[in-house]
Amino acid sequence: MSVSIKQLLWLPVVLLALLLGWVAIKILSYEQLDNSLHMAEKQRYLEQLANAVMPSSDTARPNIVFILFDDLGYGDLGVTGSQAIATPAIDTLAEQGLSLTQFYAPAPVCTPSRAGFLTGRLPLRAGLPNVVFPDGSPFNLAHRLTGTNMHLPREEITLPEVLQASGYQTGMVGKWHLGDKSDTRPNDFGFDYFFGALYSNDMTPFPLYRNRDIAFASPADQTLLKARYSEEAVEFIDRQGDEPFFLYFPHNFPHIPLYIPEEDRARSKGGLYGDVVEGLDETVANVVAALKAKGVFENTLILISSDNGPWFQGSRGHDRGRKGNTFEGGMHVPMIVHWPQGLEGGRNIDGISMGTDWLPTILDWLQLPAPEDRALDGRSLRSMLEAGAESPHDYLYYLSGSTLAAVRDPDYKYHARRLITHKSGGMPIGIGIPKGPWLFDTRTDFNESYDVSMNDADAAARLKTALEAKQQELLDNPRGWIE
Amino acid sequence: MSVSIKQLLWLPVVLLALLLGWVAIKILSYEQLDNSLHMAEKQRYLEQLANAVMPSSDTARPNIVFILFDDLGYGDLGVTGSQAIATPAIDTLAEQGLSLTQFYAPAPVCTPSRAGFLTGRLPLRAGLPNVVFPDGSPFNLAHRLTGTNMHLPREEITLPEVLQASGYQTGMVGKWHLGDKSDTRPNDFGFDYFFGALYSNDMTPFPLYRNRDIAFASPADQTLLKARYSEEAVEFIDRQGDEPFFLYFPHNFPHIPLYIPEEDRARSKGGLYGDVVEGLDETVANVVAALKAKGVFENTLILISSDNGPWFQGSRGHDRGRKGNTFEGGMHVPMIVHWPQGLEGGRNIDGISMGTDWLPTILDWLQLPAPEDRALDGRSLRSMLEAGAESPHDYLYYLSGSTLAAVRDPDYKYHARRLITHKSGGMPIGIGIPKGPWLFDTRTDFNESYDVSMNDADAAARLKTALEAKQQELLDNPRGWIE
Repeated sequence: MSVSIKQLLWLPVVLLALLLGWVAIKILSYEQLDNSLHMAEKQRYLEQLANAVMPSSDTARPNIVFILFDDLGYGDLGVTGSQAIATPAIDTLAEQGLSLTQFYAPAPVCTPSRAGFLTGRLPLRAGLPNVVFPDGSPFNLAHRLTGTNMHLPREEITLPEVLQASGYQTGMVGKWHLGDKSDTRPNDFGFDYFFGALYSNDMTPFPLYRNRDIAFASPADQTLLKARYSEEAVEFIDRQGDEPFFLYFPHNFPHIPLYIPEEDRARSKGGLYGDVVEGLDETVANVVAALKAKGVFENTLILISSDNGPWFQGSRGHDRGRKGNTFEGGMHVPMIVHWPQGLEGGRNIDGISMGTDWLPTILDWLQLPAPEDRALDGRSLRSMLEAGAESPHDYLYYLSGSTLAAVRDPDYKYHARRLITHKSGGMPIGIGIPKGPWLFDTRTDFNESYDVSMNDADAAARLKTALEAKQQELLDNPRGWIE
Repeated sequence: MSVSIKQLLWLPVVLLALLLGWVAIKILSYEQLDNSLHMAEKQRYLEQLANAVMPSSDTARPNIVFILFDDLGYGDLGVTGSQAIATPAIDTLAEQGLSLTQFYAPAPVCTPSRAGFLTGRLPLRAGLPNVVFPDGSPFNLAHRLTGTNMHLPREEITLPEVLQASGYQTGMVGKWHLGDKSDTRPNDFGFDYFFGALYSNDMTPFPLYRNRDIAFASPADQTLLKARYSEEAVEFIDRQGDEPFFLYFPHNFPHIPLYIPEEDRARSKGGLYGDVVEGLDETVANVVAALKAKGVFENTLILISSDNGPWFQGSRGHDRGRKGNTFEGGMHVPMIVHWPQGLEGGRNIDGISMGTDWLPTILDWLQLPAPEDRALDGRSLRSMLEAGAESPHDYLYYLSGSTLAAVRDPDYKYHARRLITHKSGGMPIGIGIPKGPWLFDTRTDFNESYDVSMNDADAAARLKTALEAKQQELLDNPRGWIE
């Protein structure tokens, strides 16, 4: 048997064409489907909230302002020990309010962390464990190829939807990063008003939207971002009437690239990064001033946090690790809570808590029921915040992408070698731990320097069991649907 | 034209055979050549030392004990702030001696760091910028393929050779890691006596040698390593006569894997790692006791340091980064200096210095000339240590493999994007900095959190110029030969 060389040359061409065809089909046929059963349950739940009898006390319906920084490190604020950056507005809120010293972002990167903050569920449960990218990004093509979700599933219930349904005016100023399809933007998830960006400030295109329309074409001038966001936030507060309001104010900074207006140059001792953070503190001061001018400062719950630890720059305080990993520095973030009418101030709260706790906590304060068709991972922090009770959590779980990397309780943190928590439908990435398993004593070793698993074998076994049980739970029912 | 399939199948086979043949030739023909000119210059220099008139004062010829830990972090000692690990013997030496607070290992990994400590030259100058591996290791094959040096070049002049030539009794107990060829072992580089390992304790095979013979077959029992090394060090001291002696005592621990004798289990609050370090402190106590028993403690210069920052475990104190990179945590190490007859104790010395400084410093104390055929990168620390003068260095350079990554002066540290410092003869590896260039203010930001290059542009330009000049110097004359 013989074959001509010319004929043979076709073989790789045909194979390549078949491969490209398969890739093209996977990419073009990609579709992120809604879960229609839980879409219906979500509708029923939101109607139930709309019909609920509202609590009579004003204090039970505070305004809520949630300010979220992007990639701000634990040590980047005056109140958390920075010598290089002055944040007087935030420091004052912390001193007159509460600081949660052992608070965690729901994930070590942007998108899943925000999904956790807004849904009260671990990002994997909320269907969005990985970062999403603009249309056309090669990362996005990889998501299509692997069938990874690219927007917050529409059946997820978000904090703004809950508040909107129960009579709040809801506004968002800042960065979304939970999807850019036309029906998965902020206005589709409970915000009456939206001004801001759909993505991180290092992604292209980067226009600014007002509701569903582009207000400033891409690339929006980032030296003006601080001023524009601040003005929009203040104007949102100014135009509120008697109804309670919710303002979600997630900044794009100090995520890189960093930009400042010329007058902010060299204001800090922390370089351009410090200059940016001092500018962000100013926006907090402006929000506080607007709340005071309106006479609602006393009954406004102000929450200030970060979506994950610092990236290339920024200080993770005494922690180990940075953005993108499950050492403390990746997920341990500042959490300041200020609500004069509802919470006695001037306290540090050391109980363990996570961004997923805010939705259940707010439901608790508003005396609203939780949804019944899905598990929430967050717990109400009410008694911990109001009465200094212990954390409602026996354990907190550290997920990076679809990797269940670690678990902690009040005393210890256990790093697994890596547990993958679902078999498909998401990229099992997550910059993990090079060695392990490790047990760190968080009471003495926040820096995660010393594995004590050999000497505290009981604790290691207990946390390992907890982690493996959570892994099994997530494998069995990744989205936590309740039948 | 046509060809049978059977004939075609030979094509990849032939290509593979050619490739393998080329690889085999590269590997088999690998030879690390001596530089005969500088071998002769070395001989002449050592003879010159042997004929030099020795200083008359005893103090000018102290005994020298250099204890080097492997992968010990800056924060792993009581004296450097550890709450988890008790190191009373080391702490006492530090309190009664000097602590160099801004001291750097010559490289962020084992082999090149040791090359720098022993030659007074940057590892690239000393011809050994990369880690070496045992015969048969795939890494070693890669070194052969790329023509990378696998032992300290024989023409390099080492501290033990200098001391041996000038009348010291020289002994080494511990880890060599500078080559395993029969003529490049400790006894070939100036040690009268050697007991220990040729490699890291995670490398195979791992026998223990006494001089040129295997004393304990591979794998040596590492639970006995502490006791064996300690006994050998003490016995070396015990058997000394009236001549001054030099004991180089580089431990294999706390490099992983970690082993302890059963009685050390759970002695620390720092897990197995802490238990190991507390055991190492005991060996320091044993050495001190032996020196005191012999009546030579007062005129013995004791140096205690680490070859690089901590790896997976261990504390880098307030630094950023760990072993293998050029953030502070990779190269900033403890440096304790104790010499009652020669140096007033109870002081911290904050001037910048590096492991390459010890050879020139000791030459200075012994009133010996420096070699004239080669550049030393180290500088004598004598006036800094004796009189608290400023550092002799305008700049210190951070080399990782053949990558010139950063430079610092007393106030700032500048990270380049990566400068490769030679074109061949070494692997240009070195885990670098993901972004940059960056300028950190080391006076306020040892944690390397905030790039101040925009606000301190003059300093950034100055350090960049210094770094690029050093790069050019290393490209032009990598080994620093003086014609």
